[in-house]
Amino acid sequence: MPTGLRPSTSSSCDAAIFRPIRASLQQRRKEMPKLSPLRKAEEIASTFGFEMAIVDLERLFSKEASEDHPLLRRKLAGPSAPFPAERYAGKPLRVAYQGIPGSYCQEAAAKAFSSIRCEAFPCSHMEDAFQALEEGDANQAIVPVENSIDGTIDRNFDLLLRHQDVEIIGELVLPVNHCLLSLKGTSRSDLRRVISHPQALSHCRAKLEGFERHLEIEEVPNAAEAARYISENRITDTAVIGSRIAAKEFGLEVLEQNFQDRSENFNRFWQLGLGAQHQRRELGDAWKTTVAFSLEKGVSDLFRAMWIFESRDISVTKVDHRPNRSNPIRVKEESTGDHKYFDYVFVMDVEGSASDSSMEKALKVLEEISGFVHVLGSYTCRLKN
Amino acid sequence: MPTGLRPSTSSSCDAAIFRPIRASLQQRRKEMPKLSPLRKAEEIASTFGFEMAIVDLERLFSKEASEDHPLLRRKLAGPSAPFPAERYAGKPLRVAYQGIPGSYCQEAAAKAFSSIRCEAFPCSHMEDAFQALEEGDANQAIVPVENSIDGTIDRNFDLLLRHQDVEIIGELVLPVNHCLLSLKGTSRSDLRRVISHPQALSHCRAKLEGFERHLEIEEVPNAAEAARYISENRITDTAVIGSRIAAKEFGLEVLEQNFQDRSENFNRFWQLGLGAQHQRRELGDAWKTTVAFSLEKGVSDLFRAMWIFESRDISVTKVDHRPNRSNPIRVKEESTGDHKYFDYVFVMDVEGSASDSSMEKALKVLEEISGFVHVLGSYTCRLKN
Repeated sequence: MPTGLRPSTSSSCDAAIFRPIRASLQQRRKEMPKLSPLRKAEEIASTFGFEMAIVDLERLFSKEASEDHPLLRRKLAGPSAPFPAERYAGKPLRVAYQGIPGSYCQEAAAKAFSSIRCEAFPCSHMEDAFQALEEGDANQAIVPVENSIDGTIDRNFDLLLRHQDVEIIGELVLPVNHCLLSLKGTSRSDLRRVISHPQALSHCRAKLEGFERHLEIEEVPNAAEAARYISENRITDTAVIGSRIAAKEFGLEVLEQNFQDRSENFNRFWQLGLGAQHQRRELGDAWKTTVAFSLEKGVSDLFRAMWIFESRDISVTKVDHRPNRSNPIRVKEESTGDHKYFDYVFVMDVEGSASDSSMEKALKVLEEISGFVHVLGSYTCRLKN
Repeated sequence: MPTGLRPSTSSSCDAAIFRPIRASLQQRRKEMPKLSPLRKAEEIASTFGFEMAIVDLERLFSKEASEDHPLLRRKLAGPSAPFPAERYAGKPLRVAYQGIPGSYCQEAAAKAFSSIRCEAFPCSHMEDAFQALEEGDANQAIVPVENSIDGTIDRNFDLLLRHQDVEIIGELVLPVNHCLLSLKGTSRSDLRRVISHPQALSHCRAKLEGFERHLEIEEVPNAAEAARYISENRITDTAVIGSRIAAKEFGLEVLEQNFQDRSENFNRFWQLGLGAQHQRRELGDAWKTTVAFSLEKGVSDLFRAMWIFESRDISVTKVDHRPNRSNPIRVKEESTGDHKYFDYVFVMDVEGSASDSSMEKALKVLEEISGFVHVLGSYTCRLKN
C-alpha cells in the first residue's frame, strides 16, 4: 500500500477519541424512555446518526491497518439445506412458470431443473404461479424479475409482498437468446414480415435493419403465442423472434439464434417456494438476501438502511420500491403547514445469507428505523449459459 | 430541549478533534495524482468516506447547539423566472398530453393551465409528447409519473433520459377522482356491467362489491376509449369508471364521483418543456430537483449519493433506477473470479432548487462518484384539488 494511503497523523486520531462520544450515547439511550414519543423518535434518529458516523470512522481507521479493502471483500457463506431433488426423491418436481408454453420463463424452468426430473406447467396469469404454490399444486415456481436492458418487473414484487408464505429460494441469470423462428422448410428469402413482442423487436432493431431484405415489423403482446400462430396456420412468409424452446414446442425451425443486437442482454428469474427450501450450496455460488421494509421517516432514511448493510461489508446490489399500500401517503407536520409525501415499501437485494451473523445484526438494526422488516428470501445465485 | 438530548461530555468532543483528520485528507488528496487509476479511484472513495463521516459528526455537534433539527428544515428557495403566461402573452399555450381525449392526463392539463388560455392536444403514443416539444408543435407537455397506490410509470423516465433537451418544469399532484359514468338518462338500476382499465377497477373494488346490484366487471386497456364507446353506441346497461373530463368530452352523466375506495389515491404528473421555462414562484410552493446519474462503483455507492444531499439538509423524496443502457452489465474482478452485476442509471428527486448554493455543491460532489450527472429539471410542486 503506498504510504500516501495512510493518514500521516493516524497516531493522533486514535480510536479512543470515540469513547466519550460512545459514553454520551449510552447516557442518551438510558434517558430515552422518559421522552415523549415524538422526541423519542427524533432521539433514536439522532443517536443512530452518531452511531453511523462513529462506525464509519472506526471502520476507516481499522482499514488503514489492513491491506484488504473491506468494501471489496465478499461474503459467500450461507446455510446448507436439502436440495429439492433429495426432498422430493422419487416424485417429479412440479414447477409452475409464468407465461404460456414456449415462453422465456419455460426456458428458464427447463434450465433451472435440467438435472432433475420435473413437470413444468404454465400459468397464464402471473398470480396463478403464486396460488399454485400456496395450494400445493406446485413445489416450486419460476418467475421473471428483471431484464438488463428493459428493467424490473414490478408486478412480481407486489405478488411476493402479498403472498407472504412464498419465499425466494433461488436466482437464475440467463443470457437472452432471441431466435429467428420460421416454419420448417422456409428460407430467409421467403420472409416478408417479422412479428414479436415490442421488447424483443427492440432488442433486435439493428439486426432487423441490416437484414438482407426489407421485413415488415409487427408488434404482438406475446411472442410464444405468435410462434404457435404461425405454426398452426402454416404461415410461410413470417418469422417470429422467440425462444429456442418455442421452436421445440411448436415444431419451428431456428433460422438464426442469438439474433439480439447486444451481448449484455440478460434475464433474471427467481425460483419461489413455500419457505425453507434452500438450494444446495455449490462451490462458487454466491448468496443473496432480499429484504422488504418500510421506513418510519420515509425515503430520507433510505441511505441509513443501505448504510446498515454496507458498513458491515454487505454489498447492496439493488434497491426497488413499491407503493406502501397500507399507508400510501405520509403527512409531515412542518412550520409551513402539513406536507404530503408518497410513501414506499423498499425491496433491497444484498450479498450474503440471512444466517450470516453480520447479516443477522444488520437486519436487527434495520428494525430500529423500520415499520416492518420482512426477509423475502435468502438464496444462491446462478449464472447459466 | 431536554438536557438528555445534549451529550454530557460535549466539551471533550470539540470539533477541533477533526482537524488532524482533515489535514491528513488534504495530504492524501495532494498525493492522488501520483497514483494508478485503480488506486486513485479507491482513494477517492476512501477519502470520501472519511469526509462523509466527519461532515456527519460535525453536523451532529453543531445540531446540539441549535433548537432546530436540520433534517426537519426545508429549503423552498429557488430561481424566479417568467411564467409561460407572460412568455407566450397573446398566443394560447400549446400543451401536449399523453393519452386520448377523456384521459386523466387531459384532466391534469386542464387543471395545470386553468388560469391561462391554452390548447391541449392528445398524444396516443407516449413518445409523441416528447417529439411534439422537440419539433415545436407544443410549448409544454403533461405526462403521468406516478400513482400513490400503483407506483411509478418507468417509461417516462426512459423517454426523459433519451430526449435530453426536454426538462421537467413543474410537478402537479392531483387526488384521483374516479367517476361512475353512464349514458344520460340511465339510472343505477339499469346497470348490468361496469368496464374500465384494470387499475381503476382495482381502485374501486370495495365500492363495486357493495353496489346495490351485481355488476359484471370487464377490463379494457383504456377507460377513456370505453367512455367514447358507450357514448357512440348508446349502450344503456353499462357504466364506465373514468375521469370527469371524459363525461364532458363524450356527453355522459356522472352517476357518482369519487367512486374510489381510498382517499389516499393521488396521481403525480410532470410538466415538461424545452429548458429554462421555470414556473413563477408562489408563496408556499415547494421546489424539487430531479437528477439522473450513474455510479462508478455501482449500487453499493447509492447511499453515498443520497448522503451527499441529506448531509446538506436536502431531503431525498424518491430514488428510482433504470437499466444503464450504455453499459447494462458491470463486471467486477474478484478473488473468486469475475462477477457480473446489472448496472443502473439512478433518478433521484430531492427537495430544493438546483440554484440553491447547497444543492450546487451537492451536485458537484456527486460528480466525484458518478459516470455522469444530469439535472432533469428543477421545478415547483403543486397539490391541486
